[in-house]
Amino acid sequence: MSSNNFNDTPERPARRGFLKAGGAAVAAGATLGATNIAHAAVHAKQDAAIADPMLAVEPFYGEHQGGIVTPQQAHTYVAAFDLTTTSRDDVINLLRQWTDAAARMTQAQPAAKLDGVGDDHPAPDSGDALGLGAAGLTVTFGFGPGLFTSEGKDRYGLAHRRPAALVDLPRFNGDQLLAEKTGGDLYVQACANDAQVAFHAVRQLARQGYGILHMRWGQAGFLSGPRAQTPRNLMGFKDGTNNPPTADPKLMNQFVWATDADAPWMQGGTYTVVRRIRITLEHWDQMELGFQEQVFGRHKYSGAPIGKQKEFDAVDLDAQDKDGNPQIPENSHVRLSNRASNNGAQILRRSYSYNDGTDFYIERWPPWRQETEYDAGLIFVAHQSDPRTGFIPINEKLAKFDMMNQFTTHVGSAIFACPPGAKPGSFIGAELFAA
Amino acid sequence: MSSNNFNDTPERPARRGFLKAGGAAVAAGATLGATNIAHAAVHAKQDAAIADPMLAVEPFYGEHQGGIVTPQQAHTYVAAFDLTTTSRDDVINLLRQWTDAAARMTQAQPAAKLDGVGDDHPAPDSGDALGLGAAGLTVTFGFGPGLFTSEGKDRYGLAHRRPAALVDLPRFNGDQLLAEKTGGDLYVQACANDAQVAFHAVRQLARQGYGILHMRWGQAGFLSGPRAQTPRNLMGFKDGTNNPPTADPKLMNQFVWATDADAPWMQGGTYTVVRRIRITLEHWDQMELGFQEQVFGRHKYSGAPIGKQKEFDAVDLDAQDKDGNPQIPENSHVRLSNRASNNGAQILRRSYSYNDGTDFYIERWPPWRQETEYDAGLIFVAHQSDPRTGFIPINEKLAKFDMMNQFTTHVGSAIFACPPGAKPGSFIGAELFAA
Repeated sequence: MSSNNFNDTPERPARRGFLKAGGAAVAAGATLGATNIAHAAVHAKQDAAIADPMLAVEPFYGEHQGGIVTPQQAHTYVAAFDLTTTSRDDVINLLRQWTDAAARMTQAQPAAKLDGVGDDHPAPDSGDALGLGAAGLTVTFGFGPGLFTSEGKDRYGLAHRRPAALVDLPRFNGDQLLAEKTGGDLYVQACANDAQVAFHAVRQLARQGYGILHMRWGQAGFLSGPRAQTPRNLMGFKDGTNNPPTADPKLMNQFVWATDADAPWMQGGTYTVVRRIRITLEHWDQMELGFQEQVFGRHKYSGAPIGKQKEFDAVDLDAQDKDGNPQIPENSHVRLSNRASNNGAQILRRSYSYNDGTDFYIERWPPWRQETEYDAGLIFVAHQSDPRTGFIPINEKLAKFDMMNQFTTHVGSAIFACPPGAKPGSFIGAELFAA
Repeated sequence: MSSNNFNDTPERPARRGFLKAGGAAVAAGATLGATNIAHAAVHAKQDAAIADPMLAVEPFYGEHQGGIVTPQQAHTYVAAFDLTTTSRDDVINLLRQWTDAAARMTQAQPAAKLDGVGDDHPAPDSGDALGLGAAGLTVTFGFGPGLFTSEGKDRYGLAHRRPAALVDLPRFNGDQLLAEKTGGDLYVQACANDAQVAFHAVRQLARQGYGILHMRWGQAGFLSGPRAQTPRNLMGFKDGTNNPPTADPKLMNQFVWATDADAPWMQGGTYTVVRRIRITLEHWDQMELGFQEQVFGRHKYSGAPIGKQKEFDAVDLDAQDKDGNPQIPENSHVRLSNRASNNGAQILRRSYSYNDGTDFYIERWPPWRQETEYDAGLIFVAHQSDPRTGFIPINEKLAKFDMMNQFTTHVGSAIFACPPGAKPGSFIGAELFAA
């Protein structure tokens, strides 16, 4: 058997998996001994197959990129790269190759044809996601400030096309940013219902960029939630309750999708802010439940705003307790981040928890422990039509006043312009590079 | 609503989830308009519910601890702790508390009763796994050499009970061990079908040990595999094909379960070796497919031994190619680790991939790059009846000769005696502490 034998290489595992599930259902139904019952069982099993998160397939091409308003998958791997090439053509060719590979992988195919190269080249796909299915993979690309101007140089003739909304983020109160977790010229966000499928996508793209870019940072994340419920973050609270509903195109147009106001090539794209927020979970876990609820402004178990019964009950910032004090504390996270406190600003949060084991850490709040601690927390990801009216003013306020800051430290930060979706035959960002 | 309102606190979410799935099926079936069809659909959906990995429940109490021959769950969090107390009673009380908490969590309950403490104590459970189900959670405890003697001191009167098989691991060729990823007095291995459920279990136990132990290291891992197939590691090869079958009690008694030969309290336990093996995936991804197959001694896509067709075809170490050279290379991983090359020794590997983002790294093999790279690889976990005839001789050979060493570096290491399972009403390791 030669190394070009691809017996179990699935060019279409999603479809194959679906058919296989259907076949199993026929067999299972048949044991019930009645055709109509078997038929019903087939329907039920097919529903189950469609709902199998490993078999989910998201479109790649379209008006918008995937992974922005796509219902959030269970895992992510986000990465940023620094370009080392000085050639505009290199960048264009890379984006063409990335577009093609991403489109293939989202459809459960290898990054490139497995028999497309001889044995004197690197394998066209690392193979670790073979047979796993598309797992709902989306791959979202973004452009950092360094693509437009890097150390004062207009490397690719793009400086004049930088959108005004792609600002350099200000330094926020309490920021303790690490250079090796911050910034980047190119952004790749892979989201999938399987950790290996997400990481696999980024690995293939990184390999394709060999010689013209360096990895700046990479980060795995995950999200665990009971089906159809708001997932809980590592602090144990439901996270995302007050997100603007992605099913409402009007709200998405208002808060998420960029307009052509300052950069026509960005119309239908979005601006994405990524923050690596370390949480001293050991510290948090020693707190009383009631205090934790004061910090969030919500009840922990139900997710309801303090004083309310249900998760989706409206946040009433004017409610007072019997002593006339605000029921939702002045410095609680819910109050400070609420749109009513931020001139109506909203951002679409699409964050993941992260868990990178342990390392030596010096806490910056009492009890100021210095010891081996969890390197875990939140990969905060927020999409918005303009960070100058979205993340920046909201986080200015949170960074100064949020009680949660006793437990959280922003150690990584990046901002990217994520262009609109690619058209079939074209590539991501084509309109930026159009003469 | 007070903080003692537990509206959505699931004391038995597994069961509730099951009933909910059944109820949904009734509704779905009813739209088909015939009772018997609805009934069939209920059966099909109930099968699906039973197979739902989030609803799986593993027993905690028993002859052996869970997480050893338990079919491997999709996620893990492994951790080691150093004891700081000098009190034997502290250790016993901790193990009692851990046993109780672990038993509860494996049955999808919070680590302790949520309404069991007043609001002047830390919350009895961090809440981040509420509603997720047991997800097949197992919690496995082990004792490191430091429990018996630490810096020459017999802190807990246990020195004379240290089993001979709990050796200090030798230094292996190529080891680049980091102190902060190595050793530990107590071991906790949580495995579950959900990353948050696994981490949650370790967090609760760590919090319960506050003041008498320190975290030494913690590590998340994952495993992605098409259902009922051998999963692929990050190098893209199937991993675990030649494991001794856990369904064979005779083999498990021979190779996995400790006997009472040198430590009666360990009968029914096992010795566990953990190695954090970093893999330079960027380097590996630049290799040709044929070379990768020579390194493993297997075909990548099928998993078959070189020269064979199917994954489970026997490894024939004597087979030669047409030029009379061994078909499975002398320095391939499969040959060197095969039981025929190791006096029949076998170990039960139960490893996970890990993916801790990126950091600055200096490669120790050509091309000796120094740059930001993936901190990813394998959390190698092996269970065995005696490491002196198991992991140690096998790894002595691999460390010297395995071609794979060009891509792998062992950066963490630990060994633990994992005692037998606890009896209801007793605690893990009770017989070690029995006078």
